[in-house]
Amino acid sequence: MSHYAQQPIDNYQVSLQKNFPPGTKGVWAEQKDNGRYSLIEEEISLPAAVILQSAVESNIRWMQAFANQHQVNLCPHGKTSMTPYLFKRQLQQGAWGMTIATPAHAEIAAMAGAQNIIMANQLVGKTNMAEVARLQSCFDVNFYCSVDSTLNVEQLSNFFAERGQQVKVFIELGVAGGRCGVRGIEAATELAKRIHKLPGTALSGVEVYEGVISGDDAEARVRAFIAETAEFAKSLKDQGLIDTKDAIVTGAGSAWYDLVAETFSQYNDLLPVIRPGCYLTHDTGIYDVAQKKVMARAEKNQGVACRMGGDLKNALEVWACVVSTPEPGKAVIGMGKRDASYDAGLPIAERGFRNGSAIDIDGLIATAVMDQHTFVDVPENCDLQVGDVIAFSTSHPCLTFDKWRYIALADDDFTVEHWLPTQF
Amino acid sequence: MSHYAQQPIDNYQVSLQKNFPPGTKGVWAEQKDNGRYSLIEEEISLPAAVILQSAVESNIRWMQAFANQHQVNLCPHGKTSMTPYLFKRQLQQGAWGMTIATPAHAEIAAMAGAQNIIMANQLVGKTNMAEVARLQSCFDVNFYCSVDSTLNVEQLSNFFAERGQQVKVFIELGVAGGRCGVRGIEAATELAKRIHKLPGTALSGVEVYEGVISGDDAEARVRAFIAETAEFAKSLKDQGLIDTKDAIVTGAGSAWYDLVAETFSQYNDLLPVIRPGCYLTHDTGIYDVAQKKVMARAEKNQGVACRMGGDLKNALEVWACVVSTPEPGKAVIGMGKRDASYDAGLPIAERGFRNGSAIDIDGLIATAVMDQHTFVDVPENCDLQVGDVIAFSTSHPCLTFDKWRYIALADDDFTVEHWLPTQF
Repeated sequence: MSHYAQQPIDNYQVSLQKNFPPGTKGVWAEQKDNGRYSLIEEEISLPAAVILQSAVESNIRWMQAFANQHQVNLCPHGKTSMTPYLFKRQLQQGAWGMTIATPAHAEIAAMAGAQNIIMANQLVGKTNMAEVARLQSCFDVNFYCSVDSTLNVEQLSNFFAERGQQVKVFIELGVAGGRCGVRGIEAATELAKRIHKLPGTALSGVEVYEGVISGDDAEARVRAFIAETAEFAKSLKDQGLIDTKDAIVTGAGSAWYDLVAETFSQYNDLLPVIRPGCYLTHDTGIYDVAQKKVMARAEKNQGVACRMGGDLKNALEVWACVVSTPEPGKAVIGMGKRDASYDAGLPIAERGFRNGSAIDIDGLIATAVMDQHTFVDVPENCDLQVGDVIAFSTSHPCLTFDKWRYIALADDDFTVEHWLPTQF
Repeated sequence: MSHYAQQPIDNYQVSLQKNFPPGTKGVWAEQKDNGRYSLIEEEISLPAAVILQSAVESNIRWMQAFANQHQVNLCPHGKTSMTPYLFKRQLQQGAWGMTIATPAHAEIAAMAGAQNIIMANQLVGKTNMAEVARLQSCFDVNFYCSVDSTLNVEQLSNFFAERGQQVKVFIELGVAGGRCGVRGIEAATELAKRIHKLPGTALSGVEVYEGVISGDDAEARVRAFIAETAEFAKSLKDQGLIDTKDAIVTGAGSAWYDLVAETFSQYNDLLPVIRPGCYLTHDTGIYDVAQKKVMARAEKNQGVACRMGGDLKNALEVWACVVSTPEPGKAVIGMGKRDASYDAGLPIAERGFRNGSAIDIDGLIATAVMDQHTFVDVPENCDLQVGDVIAFSTSHPCLTFDKWRYIALADDDFTVEHWLPTQF
């Protein structure tokens, strides 16, 4: 039971002086005495995933300041990065806890020092429950998971009560046509009463993921759903159904966190928690679009976001080489579906280098990806050559992070001294 | 330089008796004395990726027998699995070598014992070249890579000649509108002459990937392209431009390997090499469709494939739980884009279990995936419940493999004693 205590995460950063497992992509280099490796000079094997340190630190501070100004608690969704170094930075800058998606993730969050851990999903299956029971017995943490069915609540209560434990649960409210979550306040209230009676479950509040709401009237529907969520949480508290000290109300991905924070912060009796994840490294695709909408709403409504100064910045790139220029106007990059996300837009060329000097890559557009290759259209006035190095941003950071076991941490000169292990 | 020799891969299989890194998905279980864990009884945390041992062994034997009967050499594309245990099984059953996609992959192939390593891609960038130079100096292997430009050939020759080495190269022939590869025999012949003259490159043959050819007339175009490829390889040999003992001609993904083998095997002066990868675990999607076409061609042409007995079988699954049944006719599975491929069809429900017994899941259809969730439509007569365990097959095995650091190796009763580490 105690192997956690004997294995704290001590490798938040790894330098190239330490041996990486052979065959690990994106970390190989010819050893240099000063331990500093230039991406521009191509001293690291490409493709490589790169975190821009100043941008990621700026993002961590920005979102923490946003939460502080709204007096809501920030519990970043760690599934985005699953990078203990970044969990630790988020916690050090004031995060209340970490959100995660699975029991395996919860172990990583606990080892990184999180004292509050929200699994924003259902805890299902006896082996997954056993993993959480082990977590609760080994760490002094508050672990919360979501429930949306009587069957699951009974499974949980039986499992944890048998082991002399309780598990803290949030009722997840859902929306028609959405993902998980109880449909309707009436059914949710019935479920709350059931949880409150059972020995192995402790009702701790209400959880939602408003990110499943889309369409032209999304903003109005998100506002209504979040208001309903807060009122429901308050009603549970008023009815005496909350079994823990705090009645928590929690929501917010990285697209609507402003609306969620504004509403939740009006409920003094509740402990409000927002859970954005992708803000950490942001992107140049779908989350950039979402953040521009946050800023536009702030401009319109005198919101906090636009008074804070600065904004989120892209902090995650994949660097790769041109490997072929087989036809005029076409090049192939040594980077593919195994290196960068492609489900919400293809990688975007940001900067180019040849022999250590910047080159003009204006108009370079990715058109398709295969497992290990990206096709780009090359404009006529661009003399792209085999061996040129291109830094790409991506859309949807979660599915770029999970392609890498180590990610290079780069300074503003694109020099790397440390790699960050991921824990997928 | 010698750290390879000190770090052979000795962990081809890992049992649960050995501690896994905490937080590693799909491997956690409550320890059992007999070390045998039942997927059906849900003694392993889900989701988990599963290799069906008898099916994968059957596939390895089948493709080796196919190559043997055609007297072509089998150099399986290892990028599919990047699983040293499976590399070793392929080599033990008679594979001539391993094909890989990157220098990092090449290290894994060498450590798994491959003596012939084809990198079926261009070797670009000084750090990637240094990785190959290190490989060549540490292992007694024949490493081959593809070239398709004078610039890259000169980069390679300069790099390797400076270090007193040569790198063996194949000219990659391409097709108009395809991926990499020289367009046209004339340009390819010019490139061959250049390679032959340079000190740091040794011309070893011709490489193609016919899998980029698609459309209604694909079969005819593939046949023509493969014939042209073999003739070109022969002409290089006849002109005295091949710098190595053997003149190799190599092609074939998992869709057209039959046509490639038939044509290449007619050239006695050449060393023919086929490189299918996905046959290893096969799938129930795009490669199942491709294999049915292989079999249909064999039926029509009295080909080898249909005389061998048996056929490829799906050998890779992802097992996961039903986590929510939020609305009638709809369920949510605890498995998503981070667990299974989704670029060539969504996961396919194969079998279902509840409390260790089989349940009827006929008609269960995946309709959408998110990072950690899969939505399924549930037919009216199916009483799917939260906690039910579903085994899914997937389409396009490469992008399921790369989601996992360990894959469970299951026997015919779905009992697991060992996990296979992957090396992405």
